[in-house]
Amino acid sequence: MSEPNGEKGQQRMSIVCWSSNLDRVWPVLILATTGAASGMQVNIFFTFWGLRVLQKNKKRITGTNWMQVGESVMDQGGTKPLHLSTMHMGGMGTWMIKRMAKKYKVASPNELVEMARDLGVQLYPCQMTMELYGLTKDDFIDGLEPSLGAASFLDMAADSDITLFI
Amino acid sequence: MSEPNGEKGQQRMSIVCWSSNLDRVWPVLILATTGAASGMQVNIFFTFWGLRVLQKNKKRITGTNWMQVGESVMDQGGTKPLHLSTMHMGGMGTWMIKRMAKKYKVASPNELVEMARDLGVQLYPCQMTMELYGLTKDDFIDGLEPSLGAASFLDMAADSDITLFI
Amino acid sequence: MSEPNGEKGQQRMSIVCWSSNLDRVWPVLILATTGAASGMQVNIFFTFWGLRVLQKNKKRITGTNWMQVGESVMDQGGTKPLHLSTMHMGGMGTWMIKRMAKKYKVASPNELVEMARDLGVQLYPCQMTMELYGLTKDDFIDGLEPSLGAASFLDMAADSDITLFI
Repeated sequence: MSEPNGEKGQQRMSIVCWSSNLDRVWPVLILATTGAASGMQVNIFFTFWGLRVLQKNKKRITGTNWMQVGESVMDQGGTKPLHLSTMHMGGMGTWMIKRMAKKYKVASPNELVEMARDLGVQLYPCQMTMELYGLTKDDFIDGLEPSLGAASFLDMAADSDITLFI
Repeated sequence: MSEPNGEKGQQRMSIVCWSSNLDRVWPVLILATTGAASGMQVNIFFTFWGLRVLQKNKKRITGTNWMQVGESVMDQGGTKPLHLSTMHMGGMGTWMIKRMAKKYKVASPNELVEMARDLGVQLYPCQMTMELYGLTKDDFIDGLEPSLGAASFLDMAADSDITLFI
Repeated sequence: MSEPNGEKGQQRMSIVCWSSNLDRVWPVLILATTGAASGMQVNIFFTFWGLRVLQKNKKRITGTNWMQVGESVMDQGGTKPLHLSTMHMGGMGTWMIKRMAKKYKVASPNELVEMARDLGVQLYPCQMTMELYGLTKDDFIDGLEPSLGAASFLDMAADSDITLFI
């Protein structure tokens, strides 16, 4: 696609992050950070289940691993925990996620999101989903872009070289 | 992407609707109607499980809510009911879908599809999936585009600014 | 999108194959082979669960059907079997997959992948996922492209007319 409004020659990628399952959040964030590190302008639209990815944990967990984070989020009640869509804790899924967390040197999903943000990936909460959940920007981690309607996201996507729904 | 054959300057979006799960059908139709309302030309290719979305219910349900529709479809036997991929009826999923239905003022999945069609979204049943299921156009709601092979859909998609597999 | 480096006028499609579920692997391979047969240049990036699709079966099965393949893969232990995400063996899923296998005259997932390769679809294993699983190219079917990092895949995708995450 063309990029008429972007930096001269800069490529763009727009991703819809629809899921809060770890095995989908990982590829969203890996593709996003890889793109940003290569000089791409990357936008992620967090919508539906995916909006959960941006929420601050009420009990902030540090220095612990992905599986413990999972349990901790479950313990809080009320929020849908990040889990694997395909294989639940205890099998191949756990093993793979642990290895990825080690490779990326991150201890929690929040840290991976923050790494993306710090690399310049633009993180947009979906306005409609926020209203449905009754969330405000105070419920999210810091440093996000303003919330966005679907029409504004589609405008960005139409000017992008890569568009993905994950 | 460029749009060499489209209306001058009109943007295009092509979506593959692969799933019949409500939590995927919603984003398909919200993105599609939002795009169409913004002046985009939008094509949806209903394939695999997603073809089910276009089927007329044998018992047509009116004035009822999404959850009742779900049960009614299940009662008919033989057809795969629209359900949530992530969380089944009874949890967060139900709550979220009910709020979305209220917000969009629609009472059933069929109504949402018809709203998309009435906004000018082009709805294409996948020819191969129709043959696999043994369905004809009489099994579908009115006002659809002619059924399409994958090659023709890819032609459309290649001329689109946004391509998504949902 | 533009295709500055491709064959003059040749269209391109880049697909991320993230899943090893049969009902997602089918659309990946059908879209890919359809595109290739229409003269498109098609790249598939096999990552996360999807890398499994490229693995050689330890016990190679011939002349059998998809369901038997499924059982055989399960019997091998250690590898995640290809299964249906939505409906498990025994229901509509089995029926649909069997009809597709018959239509495409293929007896196993490997045969479908090989058909894609023989049509000129470029099949790229994800380098990071290979490292996570501890796999080398000897674990895969023959005729694949060299393994690729996410950055290189994004380069290809940015030059493509169609980008899909399946």
